[in-house]
Amino acid sequence: MQQKIAAEFLGTFWLTFGGCGSAILTAVLAGLGVGYTGIALAFGLAVLTMSYAVGAISGAHFNPAVTIGLWVGRRLPGADVLPYIIAQVAGAMVAAAVLALIASGRPGFEMGTFAANGYGELSPGQYSMLAALVVETVATFFFVFIIMRVTAPGAAAGFAPIAIGLTLTLIHLVAIPVTNASVNPARSTGTALFSGSAYLAQLWLFWLAPLLGAVAGAIVANAVRAR
Amino acid sequence: MQQKIAAEFLGTFWLTFGGCGSAILTAVLAGLGVGYTGIALAFGLAVLTMSYAVGAISGAHFNPAVTIGLWVGRRLPGADVLPYIIAQVAGAMVAAAVLALIASGRPGFEMGTFAANGYGELSPGQYSMLAALVVETVATFFFVFIIMRVTAPGAAAGFAPIAIGLTLTLIHLVAIPVTNASVNPARSTGTALFSGSAYLAQLWLFWLAPLLGAVAGAIVANAVRAR
Amino acid sequence: MQQKIAAEFLGTFWLTFGGCGSAILTAVLAGLGVGYTGIALAFGLAVLTMSYAVGAISGAHFNPAVTIGLWVGRRLPGADVLPYIIAQVAGAMVAAAVLALIASGRPGFEMGTFAANGYGELSPGQYSMLAALVVETVATFFFVFIIMRVTAPGAAAGFAPIAIGLTLTLIHLVAIPVTNASVNPARSTGTALFSGSAYLAQLWLFWLAPLLGAVAGAIVANAVRAR
Amino acid sequence: MQQKIAAEFLGTFWLTFGGCGSAILTAVLAGLGVGYTGIALAFGLAVLTMSYAVGAISGAHFNPAVTIGLWVGRRLPGADVLPYIIAQVAGAMVAAAVLALIASGRPGFEMGTFAANGYGELSPGQYSMLAALVVETVATFFFVFIIMRVTAPGAAAGFAPIAIGLTLTLIHLVAIPVTNASVNPARSTGTALFSGSAYLAQLWLFWLAPLLGAVAGAIVANAVRAR
Repeated sequence: MQQKIAAEFLGTFWLTFGGCGSAILTAVLAGLGVGYTGIALAFGLAVLTMSYAVGAISGAHFNPAVTIGLWVGRRLPGADVLPYIIAQVAGAMVAAAVLALIASGRPGFEMGTFAANGYGELSPGQYSMLAALVVETVATFFFVFIIMRVTAPGAAAGFAPIAIGLTLTLIHLVAIPVTNASVNPARSTGTALFSGSAYLAQLWLFWLAPLLGAVAGAIVANAVRAR
Repeated sequence: MQQKIAAEFLGTFWLTFGGCGSAILTAVLAGLGVGYTGIALAFGLAVLTMSYAVGAISGAHFNPAVTIGLWVGRRLPGADVLPYIIAQVAGAMVAAAVLALIASGRPGFEMGTFAANGYGELSPGQYSMLAALVVETVATFFFVFIIMRVTAPGAAAGFAPIAIGLTLTLIHLVAIPVTNASVNPARSTGTALFSGSAYLAQLWLFWLAPLLGAVAGAIVANAVRAR
Repeated sequence: MQQKIAAEFLGTFWLTFGGCGSAILTAVLAGLGVGYTGIALAFGLAVLTMSYAVGAISGAHFNPAVTIGLWVGRRLPGADVLPYIIAQVAGAMVAAAVLALIASGRPGFEMGTFAANGYGELSPGQYSMLAALVVETVATFFFVFIIMRVTAPGAAAGFAPIAIGLTLTLIHLVAIPVTNASVNPARSTGTALFSGSAYLAQLWLFWLAPLLGAVAGAIVANAVRAR
Repeated sequence: MQQKIAAEFLGTFWLTFGGCGSAILTAVLAGLGVGYTGIALAFGLAVLTMSYAVGAISGAHFNPAVTIGLWVGRRLPGADVLPYIIAQVAGAMVAAAVLALIASGRPGFEMGTFAANGYGELSPGQYSMLAALVVETVATFFFVFIIMRVTAPGAAAGFAPIAIGLTLTLIHLVAIPVTNASVNPARSTGTALFSGSAYLAQLWLFWLAPLLGAVAGAIVANAVRAR
């Protein structure tokens, strides 16, 4: 169990450090920044790479919504759920703290949005709460549906991290303007702690919508099954 | 059969939601938008990811032209053709409706082109009808040729979704300026319903050209075969 | 042999249509164009996808320098060399013609550089002939070295098209500003025919340098070998 | 041993030529340059492609920090460490020289930063020495942790180069603004030689931080292990 907790901690650290790090440090830089495509790649590659590294240890969730979804989908014993989620939230929080340390090394640094997720006035494109709920729920539905299917018995061995990581990239290519793209309550919690109370007050949505989507995705994945 | 219909519905929803969603929500955003490269990635990753997820169930067509092509190429029983196409068009239409709901959550939202396909005055680069016909036919020819070959007996197991998804990315890197890139009548139908009668009047081309290309691609793939 | 010729014709058509097509149609478009990253991806994905499709038929060279290199490296019978090269040049020429047809469907179209390769005044960055010779020779050296190694007996099965295609992407990320990136005499010949006599007069370099690099790469690959 | 030295020399040449080449030649070019996303891709693809090519010969380190890390992690005999590092530094230096030759073929060329790594005034974003230390150490920690895990007995065969190469891409998506992204003392040494004494005076950090991170990553990887 210690190994699994370490794997989930390190994996969620890497997801937050890589994904949010590219957004915070690199996104807009006079004609050279990575833009939304680079951020979307960063989130996806973080999951792809650490899934290859620790998938055999913990299953590589790095995300409380995935953990809940896989538990509902009968892929995870109930006793693992809480330790996994604690490790994930801790990993995201430590990663956000390390990013804050690095980012503050720039002259004239201000914390700003710190890649936090939000809706309404805190949405990158001022999208409404309803739009945020829909995009986060639908995206997490497909995220967990795909995870359930590509890790099912009989799936092509070795390819799951590619499919799962690139699903997260695709989700970011769509959802960044709406909510800054979460589908991951741990990542949302880690960044909200550093971006101020307005973001913390919206954090409920980035737990609720991913969890709803994840549960639905797991149920449908078990229903839509070959044979 | 129900499983196959569900798989094709979900897959075409995902293709339209992810590909057109990146175009509608994210494409141009003050120096950060994903541009055509991000849109091209989104379409390709949607197919790559859902092909890993449901390829074993339905074959992962998500596209009436692919379904017709594979039927001509003797990979699909004739009885499956119509149910597949209905599921695909329905998936694209529902995805377009969900995208419209999300997009309308932005203050000052206007429907605009809604990522619909067009030629002449409705082409992103004002390309002629002939140019549109040629690019859609040639691109779908290669799309179906590659699908036929990488799913043929003896092809490297597990790699087909990568080859097929990235073919769709490549097609978008070339064809977006000409027609906004279709090669998929279901995706074209879904978006045209929301972008107005001018686009609906051009929809025939995005059924005709992909179907012509698909049939030719399947025939050539069966002719050009090892041994 | 007919199958091999068809495979090389189609593959080189796809490489030229996809790679040069993204450059000609999509590269610069008011804030949305794909830029050099998109063009580099397009060339690489064209080779990746068609290598999965026809690698088992012809070996998927799509490039006279690769054909000569693999012949020097004792991977190809001498009798195949000339038919392969003729099919490749024909494929590139037909693809360039189809691209010209599509591109001319835009109001106010001018042929311009048409993605042709050049040095000196015809280099995108006005790089000298020496710089062009060096970059094309070094890049083709590594291209053929990598091809020889990843298709050697004992190499990881199924991954060669990924390694080879993404090598071509990397080469374009470096060489586009210098020569517009060739490493492929067929692709250079196809586009030079449509971009005018100044480019035709420089075509010798885009046969000579890739061939030199390819021969050296094949020889070194056979020397640097495990065991 | 000669084969291993040749493999490490060629691999580190390719990493420096491809990664730094994209930065030096292609990064900013009037609306078409590859930006940080293209540079990040270039570094990652260089490692991905040459790992497929020579991984079976030398293990494909291309980086003194990786070599030290894998030695600490008991994956490499101590006798190999020094020859590997010498070959890597030589490969990076020769690649930087070839890049300087190519780059100087442009009218009005000035050497400038030449993609060298730096902190403080020499950081692309003027990040402090502490920020540089943290980002280089953390990034190399995960780089070596992932390398150790994806090449461990029982890891999915054939996928390691994808995971390792794309980890380097992700690292660049985060670290370029801080230090221009090193995690590789050989690459830093090669470019510092051409960018002047100010960069040479900071070179110690790009040996120290990657080595610290690599050693820690190897130790943790051996501790966090399935079963």
